[in-house]
Amino acid sequence: VGETHVLCEGPDLQEYGQDRAVGDWPVRPTAIVLPNSVEQIQQVVLCCAEHGAAIVPSGGRTGLVGGACAIQGEVVLSLSRMNRILRVDPSLRLLHCEAGVPLEKIQQEASRVGLLYPIDFASKGSAQIGGSIATNAGGVKVVRYGLTRNWVQGLRVVTASGALLDLGGELLKDNAGFDLRQLFIGSEGTLGVIVEATLRLCAPPRALGVALCASEDLRAVLALFSRLRAADCMLSAFEIFDESSAGYGSGASSPRDFPFANPAPWQVLLEIEGESEQIAREALAPLLTAASEAGEVREAVVAPTAAQASALWALREGISDALHGRSPFKADVSLPLGSLDAFVSRWREAVAEALPGVETVCFGHLGDGNLHLNHLCPQGVPPHRFFANCRRFEPTIFGLVREFGGSIAAEHGVGLLKRAFLGYTRSPAEIAVMRSIKNALDPKGLFNPGKLFPD
Amino acid sequence: VGETHVLCEGPDLQEYGQDRAVGDWPVRPTAIVLPNSVEQIQQVVLCCAEHGAAIVPSGGRTGLVGGACAIQGEVVLSLSRMNRILRVDPSLRLLHCEAGVPLEKIQQEASRVGLLYPIDFASKGSAQIGGSIATNAGGVKVVRYGLTRNWVQGLRVVTASGALLDLGGELLKDNAGFDLRQLFIGSEGTLGVIVEATLRLCAPPRALGVALCASEDLRAVLALFSRLRAADCMLSAFEIFDESSAGYGSGASSPRDFPFANPAPWQVLLEIEGESEQIAREALAPLLTAASEAGEVREAVVAPTAAQASALWALREGISDALHGRSPFKADVSLPLGSLDAFVSRWREAVAEALPGVETVCFGHLGDGNLHLNHLCPQGVPPHRFFANCRRFEPTIFGLVREFGGSIAAEHGVGLLKRAFLGYTRSPAEIAVMRSIKNALDPKGLFNPGKLFPD
Repeated sequence: VGETHVLCEGPDLQEYGQDRAVGDWPVRPTAIVLPNSVEQIQQVVLCCAEHGAAIVPSGGRTGLVGGACAIQGEVVLSLSRMNRILRVDPSLRLLHCEAGVPLEKIQQEASRVGLLYPIDFASKGSAQIGGSIATNAGGVKVVRYGLTRNWVQGLRVVTASGALLDLGGELLKDNAGFDLRQLFIGSEGTLGVIVEATLRLCAPPRALGVALCASEDLRAVLALFSRLRAADCMLSAFEIFDESSAGYGSGASSPRDFPFANPAPWQVLLEIEGESEQIAREALAPLLTAASEAGEVREAVVAPTAAQASALWALREGISDALHGRSPFKADVSLPLGSLDAFVSRWREAVAEALPGVETVCFGHLGDGNLHLNHLCPQGVPPHRFFANCRRFEPTIFGLVREFGGSIAAEHGVGLLKRAFLGYTRSPAEIAVMRSIKNALDPKGLFNPGKLFPD
Repeated sequence: VGETHVLCEGPDLQEYGQDRAVGDWPVRPTAIVLPNSVEQIQQVVLCCAEHGAAIVPSGGRTGLVGGACAIQGEVVLSLSRMNRILRVDPSLRLLHCEAGVPLEKIQQEASRVGLLYPIDFASKGSAQIGGSIATNAGGVKVVRYGLTRNWVQGLRVVTASGALLDLGGELLKDNAGFDLRQLFIGSEGTLGVIVEATLRLCAPPRALGVALCASEDLRAVLALFSRLRAADCMLSAFEIFDESSAGYGSGASSPRDFPFANPAPWQVLLEIEGESEQIAREALAPLLTAASEAGEVREAVVAPTAAQASALWALREGISDALHGRSPFKADVSLPLGSLDAFVSRWREAVAEALPGVETVCFGHLGDGNLHLNHLCPQGVPPHRFFANCRRFEPTIFGLVREFGGSIAAEHGVGLLKRAFLGYTRSPAEIAVMRSIKNALDPKGLFNPGKLFPD
């Protein structure tokens, strides 16, 4: 790859050796390698295999579970130089690119030809498409467009033997043998290195209507969700955030335009598609009136302009950033929709009991049953001690998730952070099958050892 | 399973021992077993494993490639008594059922709650949902709704060790480890037995507009397809059939209402969604006028009523049945859209040269790049000799598919019929990975031995 593209010392190791997860592991890569072609990647893999050096496939390192961390002398194989858009075909609605292209650039390229790549999340400027595929990333539009898996038409993958698999692509239908693409999507770099992808694009929505509602409890929120579903609205987002989230999202120091006098126990940010903004807004009004009469919402506002719609979105999207300074301990979980209400109550009770003084902040993608649980470090407590306490609390959180039939990892994956808990929501038989597949594809444990699987 | 549900002799063996494929293999099951619970299926699998008896998982036996044929003394494990709808949740838009429920019954149950299960194909009355998942079935609405894979929310699968995997289900988002569902979808019964499924449902289209167009060649048809895509119509079908298909589809003996004086080289049956039938029809008219002016279509008719729309559909859907008496030799292939035209020309030339006197009939799902190639037995030639000739011609067909970057199996799978050709469009590295997965999940080769993989 050329000497300048192998980094073996200094701050580069720290930078490329970790992602955004907060963990108690060391950052200890042996080297960072930055190939710029498929052939170079194959050679790097073969070279590592020959020398028994494990590989951490690495994208934009925006992950939150440590899947891209090198903690035991691995070689970090960074895809950052594989950042070319190779071909955009507006007629077939396909975009072919290298794995290191940032998500935001994909969105921009799609937009340039009047199309949409609908996977969208906050770290899109840094997150790379390869990593988003390896983690089957979700985001704010999953209720409408599904997870990343839905948008992957083709993949090129380098396996542990150095072979290049060319899976799917221009071919829209292929039932000749196992669909190996599916195996690599969401496998968190444990089965191979995604080096190129062919993505599906779609027509963008004609227009959107956005509303913010205030509800007393999650049962009311779910009733509203069912109402919108039954009315056959084209729902493109159904996000929730609780009372304390509202304080952060609207800006603790410089309050943004929060439309209600006070936050309710739950806020719902909902968005529907329509032929025009006016049509979408007009469709929302009677639905929200009926929801209000049924007690599902106590206040609601429909954004009268696109600028106001953005302002409402900012209330939801600003939460994560606003929490940053509070050293939040996060958990990304999913639950059956019918269990969300009971789960959140039990979680808050458990926090109050086990972590007194710790403020909870809950927001997420209700339409997907996906909650982001945040625990904030109390003033005056050193973050490292707070995190240690939270880590001792994790079995309680994931125990509740198990009890309610949820998943310990909704959209952020397992990585290092949650591997000990995989067995909470996957059965021994499932984990055995997963292990047998890992062994079949990567018998020497070359890719991302110690990730995803429990010890 | 009870003595009456084990069939060991007579015509039952013939009936349950084969599907609708036309092949030159013997039908030779040892026994047919019809369990009626998950536990019974687990016991049957364990019993077979203990006695070294291979298993052919078997649904409605409507497959066309021999995937459900028992040819070497296997036990046929029929899911026919596993035919219960377990739960329909209109609010979550999920339907949970056993694997032996016929597709048509699923469609009806969805329809009863105002929803749609959008996978649709001709054999839906007999085809079972488990088999449709095991083969990742396609059909006439793939251009709008995708393949069966898109509609499987959860699966329960019995593995070779007798374990029951409970994969997905009510949980809408789960990124905790490999998505094992995906592995079983489309694996043609080689990795496990699908015993239950949770299916996604969707809102049915409000209204449809249907048109039939006549075009001179496939380049013109593709230009029409691009035009409709660019106009952002919600296209729900884009089917094609050639001149000889038109003769069969409109009924050779009792001509149905074919709207043009004579069939063109290619007919396009297209359907779009709209808020109302009138809106859909009004959207079609200017597009077809523009297409006509551009030379993409030479004649076009928009169905003025729903009854006329059905009559147009019958022209396309009647083809397969009409061909039945002509002992057609079929091939189901897919190609990149840009190669369809050249491929069809080369295929017809090759038939004319290698199989003189054999009539070709080509129809398919153009939007998916999926062609159904039919070769008709000439009058006076015994079908068995005709089939033997066609089988010698297959390497030519699949060689062309390979040359144009297509797939030897678009939607019917590989089974017995095409296994020798898998390597034509899947690389040695891919087949090696597939074999390693098969060995990992089914090390003794219990499930469907001799299917899908080449020798």
